[in-house]
Amino acid sequence: MGELLKGKPVADAIALEVKKKAEELKAGSIKAKLMIVRVGEREDDLSYERAAVKRMESCGIEWEVTSLPRDISQDEFIKKLESVNNDKSVHGILLFRPLPAQIDENAVKHVISPEKDVDCFNPMNVAKIAEGDKTGFAPCTPTAAMELLKYYNIELKGKKAVVIGRSMVVGKPMAFLLLGENATVTICHSKTENLEQVASEADILIAAIGRPKMITDKFVKEGAVVIDVGINVDSQGNICGDADTDMCRDKAAFITPVPAGVGSVTTAVLAKHVLKGCLIANNLI
Amino acid sequence: MGELLKGKPVADAIALEVKKKAEELKAGSIKAKLMIVRVGEREDDLSYERAAVKRMESCGIEWEVTSLPRDISQDEFIKKLESVNNDKSVHGILLFRPLPAQIDENAVKHVISPEKDVDCFNPMNVAKIAEGDKTGFAPCTPTAAMELLKYYNIELKGKKAVVIGRSMVVGKPMAFLLLGENATVTICHSKTENLEQVASEADILIAAIGRPKMITDKFVKEGAVVIDVGINVDSQGNICGDADTDMCRDKAAFITPVPAGVGSVTTAVLAKHVLKGCLIANNLI
Repeated sequence: MGELLKGKPVADAIALEVKKKAEELKAGSIKAKLMIVRVGEREDDLSYERAAVKRMESCGIEWEVTSLPRDISQDEFIKKLESVNNDKSVHGILLFRPLPAQIDENAVKHVISPEKDVDCFNPMNVAKIAEGDKTGFAPCTPTAAMELLKYYNIELKGKKAVVIGRSMVVGKPMAFLLLGENATVTICHSKTENLEQVASEADILIAAIGRPKMITDKFVKEGAVVIDVGINVDSQGNICGDADTDMCRDKAAFITPVPAGVGSVTTAVLAKHVLKGCLIANNLI
Repeated sequence: MGELLKGKPVADAIALEVKKKAEELKAGSIKAKLMIVRVGEREDDLSYERAAVKRMESCGIEWEVTSLPRDISQDEFIKKLESVNNDKSVHGILLFRPLPAQIDENAVKHVISPEKDVDCFNPMNVAKIAEGDKTGFAPCTPTAAMELLKYYNIELKGKKAVVIGRSMVVGKPMAFLLLGENATVTICHSKTENLEQVASEADILIAAIGRPKMITDKFVKEGAVVIDVGINVDSQGNICGDADTDMCRDKAAFITPVPAGVGSVTTAVLAKHVLKGCLIANNLI
């Protein structure tokens, strides 16, 4: 039976390193700071916010929340975002998405400073990760998956990685990041023919579809590594991934559980990105 | 024996359409115009320039060449580029690359107006094609390959496309464009293990490596479509592609020749992009 690749030790290792560096910066009177920008009070956002705040506290990173009304106008929102951009004490901005309908994401994504854009909203960062330029910020979730692969010493170079899902938040950036580590990358999606067959050739299979337990053992090659990026609620109301973990474990050598897998690494990556933003702002990188 | 997919009929069809629309615009006193920006006198650049100028002439698109000295400073170069950006009569800018060593491409790529950036130099256009946003400009060469596939009615949806090569000029944008047409896309490169085997599973195989005749029949599935984007010179001094055309034809159902394949479609795509730039500038798109 395949081994579970848990997120906690990965997150702990990242957090420890971030904390150490944040303390070094503080010794030089530099305080790394995250600004969370939240519009409205969506439960998902609030829940992630609590986890992010807790992580920043444990890493010694300053934080603040700019909470904006659900019905804020686009102009007003842009003004707020610009003031956060201009705030020199802020090194990373986490903006919850999707934004409400009255705000056009295409109109505002250019506003956020690329150097503070720790979750890859600005096209400048999209271009950088497409180009493999490591000075940019990739979104936290696929970065968390990469950190997990690195922590558990999963060889990527030359290996067949199959990413199921092509969103700009997970699937595509995941493909870019895997390519940057010299994997041979296949991107699959809802229109892919013979998906089971394509997936079952993967040495590393990334499930980023957003459909509960869609990935069964039929999608998994004997001895493969399965990285489950999905966070769904099943028919019994339980949190589950895009993969049927128990079923896949029969064939996979390693699989990330949900919960307690990739998802538990994202806030540590966020902290690491804020620190990077702080180093950039202070010309230390 | 596989059929040759020649570029000329594709280029002619695109050019005819562009010419018709350019004439319609002229009737309303709008003249689409390309500005070629060339630094130095590299033979490759001059040769492409001649072909591009000829194509613009035949499409009824205005053109001009800004020829700059080989030793121009970065500051001077940026000033020139800005003046072309600000020239309202110009709707498309073709900038030959690579630029000489004293000019940092990373410093100047942001300068070119995204709306005039007809060969995808600015990161804004890289991000747009990564996102599948069709308002952007993809580089002319992979776009030419896509036009060719479309002209010859090659089905892409759900099919396995394998791209060999991951440059920002061909390989990666090609992958994005194929993904946008719902192909299942695999990106291979120099570190890919079992490249022959991976390639020989492709329904559509894109060779964009830059190595003469590297792709032999062993890389090709029976009945596949081979798109050869390479332009190389073989040991006898003849122009050849990345594929050994004769060898591959034994198995491929269709293959693009080199010369007279993808390469002969690029200037028509350039003309189409200039027209698009003109439509954007006049709020007609």
